[in-house]
Amino acid sequence: MNYAMIRYILGTILKAEALLMCLPALVSLWYREGDATAFLATILAAGGVGLLLSFRKPQNTVIYAREGFVVTSLSWIVMSLVGALPFRLTGAIPHYVDAVFETVSGFTTTGASILTDVEAMGRGLLFWRSFTHWVGGMGVLVFLLAILPLAGGRSVHIMRAESPGPVVGKLVPKVRGTAKILYGIYITMTVILILLLLVGGMPLYDSAVHAFGTAGTGGFGIWGDSIAHYNSAYIDVVLSVGMVLFGVNFNIYYLLLLGKPKSILKSEELRWYLGIIAGSTLLIAWNILPRMGGMLQSLRYAFFQVASVITTTGFATADFNLWPELSRSLLLMLMLLGACAGSTGGGMKVSRFVIMLKSAKREIVRMLHPRSVHVLKFEEKPLEDNTIHNVFIYFFILILVIGASTLLISLDDMDFESTFSAVVSCTNNIGPGLGVVGPMGSYATLSYLSKLVLILDMLLGRLEIFPMLMLFAPSVWAAGRKKR
Amino acid sequence: MNYAMIRYILGTILKAEALLMCLPALVSLWYREGDATAFLATILAAGGVGLLLSFRKPQNTVIYAREGFVVTSLSWIVMSLVGALPFRLTGAIPHYVDAVFETVSGFTTTGASILTDVEAMGRGLLFWRSFTHWVGGMGVLVFLLAILPLAGGRSVHIMRAESPGPVVGKLVPKVRGTAKILYGIYITMTVILILLLLVGGMPLYDSAVHAFGTAGTGGFGIWGDSIAHYNSAYIDVVLSVGMVLFGVNFNIYYLLLLGKPKSILKSEELRWYLGIIAGSTLLIAWNILPRMGGMLQSLRYAFFQVASVITTTGFATADFNLWPELSRSLLLMLMLLGACAGSTGGGMKVSRFVIMLKSAKREIVRMLHPRSVHVLKFEEKPLEDNTIHNVFIYFFILILVIGASTLLISLDDMDFESTFSAVVSCTNNIGPGLGVVGPMGSYATLSYLSKLVLILDMLLGRLEIFPMLMLFAPSVWAAGRKKR
Repeated sequence: MNYAMIRYILGTILKAEALLMCLPALVSLWYREGDATAFLATILAAGGVGLLLSFRKPQNTVIYAREGFVVTSLSWIVMSLVGALPFRLTGAIPHYVDAVFETVSGFTTTGASILTDVEAMGRGLLFWRSFTHWVGGMGVLVFLLAILPLAGGRSVHIMRAESPGPVVGKLVPKVRGTAKILYGIYITMTVILILLLLVGGMPLYDSAVHAFGTAGTGGFGIWGDSIAHYNSAYIDVVLSVGMVLFGVNFNIYYLLLLGKPKSILKSEELRWYLGIIAGSTLLIAWNILPRMGGMLQSLRYAFFQVASVITTTGFATADFNLWPELSRSLLLMLMLLGACAGSTGGGMKVSRFVIMLKSAKREIVRMLHPRSVHVLKFEEKPLEDNTIHNVFIYFFILILVIGASTLLISLDDMDFESTFSAVVSCTNNIGPGLGVVGPMGSYATLSYLSKLVLILDMLLGRLEIFPMLMLFAPSVWAAGRKKR
Repeated sequence: MNYAMIRYILGTILKAEALLMCLPALVSLWYREGDATAFLATILAAGGVGLLLSFRKPQNTVIYAREGFVVTSLSWIVMSLVGALPFRLTGAIPHYVDAVFETVSGFTTTGASILTDVEAMGRGLLFWRSFTHWVGGMGVLVFLLAILPLAGGRSVHIMRAESPGPVVGKLVPKVRGTAKILYGIYITMTVILILLLLVGGMPLYDSAVHAFGTAGTGGFGIWGDSIAHYNSAYIDVVLSVGMVLFGVNFNIYYLLLLGKPKSILKSEELRWYLGIIAGSTLLIAWNILPRMGGMLQSLRYAFFQVASVITTTGFATADFNLWPELSRSLLLMLMLLGACAGSTGGGMKVSRFVIMLKSAKREIVRMLHPRSVHVLKFEEKPLEDNTIHNVFIYFFILILVIGASTLLISLDDMDFESTFSAVVSCTNNIGPGLGVVGPMGSYATLSYLSKLVLILDMLLGRLEIFPMLMLFAPSVWAAGRKKR
């Protein structure tokens, strides 16, 4: 294990976080809030430690898969522990575990909150809370890869560990170039969204905060009733479409930039993703019609909630916890499904689902005709057996994590619906669940054990399980420093 | 497709069912119940049609995987449709869909009931209801293979389609020999159980009925409060141990008969199975201790319920629906897990779970050391990649079936817990779930759509998904009569 490189990258992460935190500090200063001192203290501490750790660049910058996994997991943990400090130091969140929960929920773009009165919090802190979504959405390490001449070695291992989806494709030969393109698209789309929200009459501060929550598919808001506060069909539609777009694989936008619109039509995952959104929207709109003023209103609320849940954002324009059981269970399943690979969304990803579906179909043919040979294709490329196998194992471990977490959370003795949906929601980085943790509820009443379990679930979910799991694998730590 | 063979086997199945139904008919006559006429009418009809269909033995008796799947699925459907007739004809269950639900629940050894007052039913009908468990437990076609010189061809295809578990092993070179050994062990163990229950003071009729429910891991009883009716620690323990033993792979008993007790200790699945039972029992005993009179009582109730659920039997000595959430969710997970392969129990099977667990562990090593090669072993034999892949696909489709069924059942607008646990319970052939369908509740209030969905789920679960799924595969029906 290349410990020197891990130290160096963690130091760089701390410096980057200190830099990023200047933005909310400025917001606090602008609104003349006392919270600014907590930000400044954290910036100085994180920046100082970061400088110390990254002062000496290691001679051997080569990293392998193992280092990639470990450094990615540790980065996310360190970032969250540090990012939680302003909440704790200002006293806005009195208990540190709660503060870490809120920060992990932010960085992992979950949006699950332990706040019972979000409107009581300072504007700088709320800005930071939503900004973590934006930072975590595209990936913090991808960000580093974009701006820093980091590893001369194989930084693709880091990108692979942090990027969502079964296969990671480099858009251009160099990882750094790919990261730059991705962040370029990400920033542009966020700015456009802010502008569109401004046009709808949303104040600048609100627009920025909600654009961060949408872009990162996070879901933190600044009002107790989330987006329902604005009660505007325009804002609902802009955010719905926004969420859907940020749930699309960013490679698609790169292809658009290259002037290849036709290749978009060929994307299998995109077709499935949009198809599932359309189908679910219609089904829920029909199901909630009796409670709504008409089909148009029904469609508006159904589309918003489907977009919010499948992209794992978690905004709400209605208390879907009160909707009929069909809508509720459909939303719960969309939570598990998640958005497209290579997007900012969480969950299992549509591509994994489609690969498993195709694989199941092939297996049935194989059982009927044992000697048949049939190569699976996805996005017009043949799939390697290893990739397919990895997808199924990911799915199995996901269900295993959900099962084990449900058991641990059930010690709180809530009803099954709340227990189960809290786990599904956190593991898939959505935010709200059903019952106690529904869109108008919060995670405040859960025990600290449950909160710690859910913190781990959110991290497992965001990093797609394997990197976090590696931290617990003895063989990662067993070998010597120099040995591969 | 060899339609002639399918016709011939279905005819034989009908004859066998007519024969089996003579037993409950005799019970009805013995207790001087009018229900006997309904049994006689069904016996005559089924026997007559059976004779007609199987009168002419086909010249070409060769069957392949495809015919094996199709004939197995069709047999179970036909048997259930016919087996439901006595319930309908006597008027004991007024609606035919309800009668089919009850019969499918019987044959698949589920034990889910639509009866609200089981004690009002005649003794002959109750005997038939529990006898279906016993018949379905070991497999109806395995029974046929044992007693009839059926197919000169490859009858292993039938055995493979009906037997539970990822790998089907023939104990002796001939399928017929294997089937005879299995049924020999099955009958012996059932008789011993009846004797043990008689010793405990249970009447002969009750002993037989409950032995059928235990041996088939079904769970139909004859009292509204299931086994709690007897309020006897002896009976509880005998049935608990009985359920655990019928949840063990029958190959183990064959090895015992051959005088190879050491090979039992080597069985990985058995070790896991017993370990999970012990662990879950202790956890639940600790969890429900405050509600019980002491540790011994707590252990008695916990062990019974764990044994009942993991073996997918579904008997109850307590209303576990009222237990704390930890016990409830643990039981729900044991429902999914199920018993050992090659037993009469349902569910996913412990061996599949262990294979997936090992496979996940290997994948993590592979991700860390991409060039490593590591062969998976189970029960000391190397596993083929195809077997592993099939296990994962089984698991994925199982979750898919549970998801889709939950959506359909949620149209009934019950709470999520009832909806979800009804599906999990039926798909894994347990019987009771939580909430509305808890051990002291029933499936009576569900809509007919929901009942039809659950009927399909029970059949899918018992035949381990693939054979039933084949019925819907176009390629099964596409090819001509003679073509393979």
